[in-house]
Amino acid sequence: MPLDLPAVPSRVVAAPMAGGPSTVELAAAVGDAGGLGSLAAGYRTPAAVAEEVERLRAVSAAPFGVNVFSPVPPGDPARVAAYAELLAPRAAGLGTALGEPVHTDDDHDAKVALLAELRPAVVSFAFGVPPARSVEALHAADVPVWLTVTSPEEAAEAAAAGADALVVQGWEAGGHRGGSDDEPAQLGTLPLLALVRRVTDLPLVAAGGIADGQGVAAVLAAGAALAQLGTAFLRTPEAGTSPAHAAALATDRPTTVTRAFTGRSARALVNRATAELSAAAPAAYPEVHLLTAPLRAAARAAGDAEEMHLWAGEAHVLAEEVPAGELVRRLAAEAREALAAARF
Amino acid sequence: MPLDLPAVPSRVVAAPMAGGPSTVELAAAVGDAGGLGSLAAGYRTPAAVAEEVERLRAVSAAPFGVNVFSPVPPGDPARVAAYAELLAPRAAGLGTALGEPVHTDDDHDAKVALLAELRPAVVSFAFGVPPARSVEALHAADVPVWLTVTSPEEAAEAAAAGADALVVQGWEAGGHRGGSDDEPAQLGTLPLLALVRRVTDLPLVAAGGIADGQGVAAVLAAGAALAQLGTAFLRTPEAGTSPAHAAALATDRPTTVTRAFTGRSARALVNRATAELSAAAPAAYPEVHLLTAPLRAAARAAGDAEEMHLWAGEAHVLAEEVPAGELVRRLAAEAREALAAARF
Repeated sequence: MPLDLPAVPSRVVAAPMAGGPSTVELAAAVGDAGGLGSLAAGYRTPAAVAEEVERLRAVSAAPFGVNVFSPVPPGDPARVAAYAELLAPRAAGLGTALGEPVHTDDDHDAKVALLAELRPAVVSFAFGVPPARSVEALHAADVPVWLTVTSPEEAAEAAAAGADALVVQGWEAGGHRGGSDDEPAQLGTLPLLALVRRVTDLPLVAAGGIADGQGVAAVLAAGAALAQLGTAFLRTPEAGTSPAHAAALATDRPTTVTRAFTGRSARALVNRATAELSAAAPAAYPEVHLLTAPLRAAARAAGDAEEMHLWAGEAHVLAEEVPAGELVRRLAAEAREALAAARF
Repeated sequence: MPLDLPAVPSRVVAAPMAGGPSTVELAAAVGDAGGLGSLAAGYRTPAAVAEEVERLRAVSAAPFGVNVFSPVPPGDPARVAAYAELLAPRAAGLGTALGEPVHTDDDHDAKVALLAELRPAVVSFAFGVPPARSVEALHAADVPVWLTVTSPEEAAEAAAAGADALVVQGWEAGGHRGGSDDEPAQLGTLPLLALVRRVTDLPLVAAGGIADGQGVAAVLAAGAALAQLGTAFLRTPEAGTSPAHAAALATDRPTTVTRAFTGRSARALVNRATAELSAAAPAAYPEVHLLTAPLRAAARAAGDAEEMHLWAGEAHVLAEEVPAGELVRRLAAEAREALAAARF
C-alpha cells in the first residue's frame, strides 16, 4: 500500500535542481505558498545536505522533498580519456585544468541513511531505481519514495520496486533525464502520461514542458496528481541560478539533449559547447561531470555562457523573474481558471 | 477579423491523413458523432477530391474540413538521384521499379479553386503558409483557413498570412511535420501551445500525442479550442489504413522522424526502411514520395511492414479497434470527466 502524497494545495512541485539552483530559500518560498519545495542532494556531501534540511526547517514549517541520485554503472575509461583530450585545450583557454574523472555513487547510502533519519515529506530519486535497501530504509521510516521515469517500461520497473509515486518526465524537460535508461525514450509529457497510466495506478507527478498555469491544468487533466516545474523557477530571485544562465534562458536559443557536460543525457540551451562536444561525449556519469566541473566553474565565473551547462526545458523563454511564492500562487490561480474555462 | 471555428460539440477533430487513412466513411462517422471529420486532398486529383466531397455530403450533413498541401521548393536533384541508386535494389527485391522523382505542387491552385467553390467548413493547409492568393480565394468564399505550425515563429508567420485558426502540431505527432520548416523545431505539444499563445490570440487546434479523453482535456486546459487526433483513428474500421500498418500500430515499436519515404520529415514506426535509409534521405518533397511510391505499394500489397511508411504518433499503442463514432463520443465523455476530476 503506497504511502500518501503530501498535501500540496497549489498542486505545484518545484523540481529539484542540483548544482546550485535549488536553494533553501527557494524551497521555503515554494512551500510557504502552498507548493512542494525540493532540495537537491546531488553533488553535495551528506553533511551539507543535513545542514540544508536544518536551515530549511528553521525558516519554514512546510513539507518538502529531497532528491537523491541512484547509483549508475561506470562508463568506458578509454572513451572518457579520449574526451578529456578533446576538452584539455578548452580548459586551458579558460585558465583552468580538468577535474579527476573518477566514478562515484555520490554517497548514495549515506544520504539515504541520513534522510531516513531526517524524514522529509518525500525522497525522490533520479537516474532510475535505487537499490532495494534504499527503498526499504525509507519505507521503514515512513518516508514516501518517488521514482523518476521516462517510459512506460521504466514506470513498470519503478512500480515493482515499491515507488509510492512516479515523477513522469517528458522529453521536453530541462536538465538531466531522470530515468534509468540513458538512451532515453523520447516521449513527450502528454503521450508519456497516457502510456504510464496504462501500467500503474500510482499517483503521477508530471514534469516537462509545463511553463504556466494552463500547463499545470493540462497535466492535472491528463491524470497527474501534481505538476513539477523546474525551468519556470530558474529566474526567481530565490533560485541559485548563475547570472549567465538566467540571462540565456530569456533568449530564444533552442535546446538540445546532450552528454557534453556530465556524461549523462540532459536538456540544455544550445551553445558552443553543445555544438562542438555533444557528438564526442561518452555515457559516463559522473566521470564527465567531474572532468568538466572546473571548466564550467571557470566559465561561470567569467560569465561565459558558451562553455557552461545551461539546463533548460523547451519553454524556457517563458521563465519569469518573479518571486517564487508569487509564482506558485499565480500558477495555482491560472490552473484553476484554465480548468474551469475548458469545460464544455 | 478571423472567420469562426465550426461548431464541434465533442471538441475532437479527426486529423487529415493523406494516402489512404482519411476516408469519406471516417469523416462521416466522426462528423455525425459531433466531431469534425477531415478529407485529405493530398496526392489526389482535383476531380477525386470533388467526388469525395460529393460522396461525403450525400451521407452526412455534418461540417467537415479538407486539407491541402502548400507548395514547397524542389530538392537537390543530385541528392535525389543518389538516393534513387540506394533504393533501386530494394525496389527490385519487391519486384517493382522506382517512380519518377518529379517536383510538383500537387495541383495546389486547382484544389484551392475547387474548395472555394465547394465551401467545406474549413480548409486547412500542411507544409507551411500557402500563397496569398490561396488564402484570399478561400476568404472571398467565406471559407475559414487553418494553417499548421510547429513553432512560435511559424505561428507568427501564419497569423500574419491571415489564418483563422492554427493547427499547433507538437513533436509527438504522427505523419508529416506540417509546418513550413522541414528542419523542424522539436517542441512538444504542451510547451508549443504555451509558446504559441504568447504570439497570437487565434483559436488553436492542438495536435500531437493526444491519445485519449484525458489528452483531449489536457490540451483544452492548455488553451486549445479543439483537439486533433490522427493516430487514434487509424485502427477504426472506417479508416483506410492498410492491414500491415494497423497491426504494427498495436506493437510497442518506437517511433522516429524520417524523410526516408517522402523526402519530408514525418514521424513513423521504426522499421528496416527507417533504420537503413533515414540518414541518406534528402529533403526533396514530393520527389522522394513519388520515387518510393511503387516500392511502398508493393510492400503494402505483400503485407511487408518493413518497407512501408508506418506513420504513427508517440502514443500509437493506445489506438483502438473501435468504431470512429463511438471513439469520438468516448473521447468527449472522458474529457469532460477529466476536466471535472482535475479541479482543485
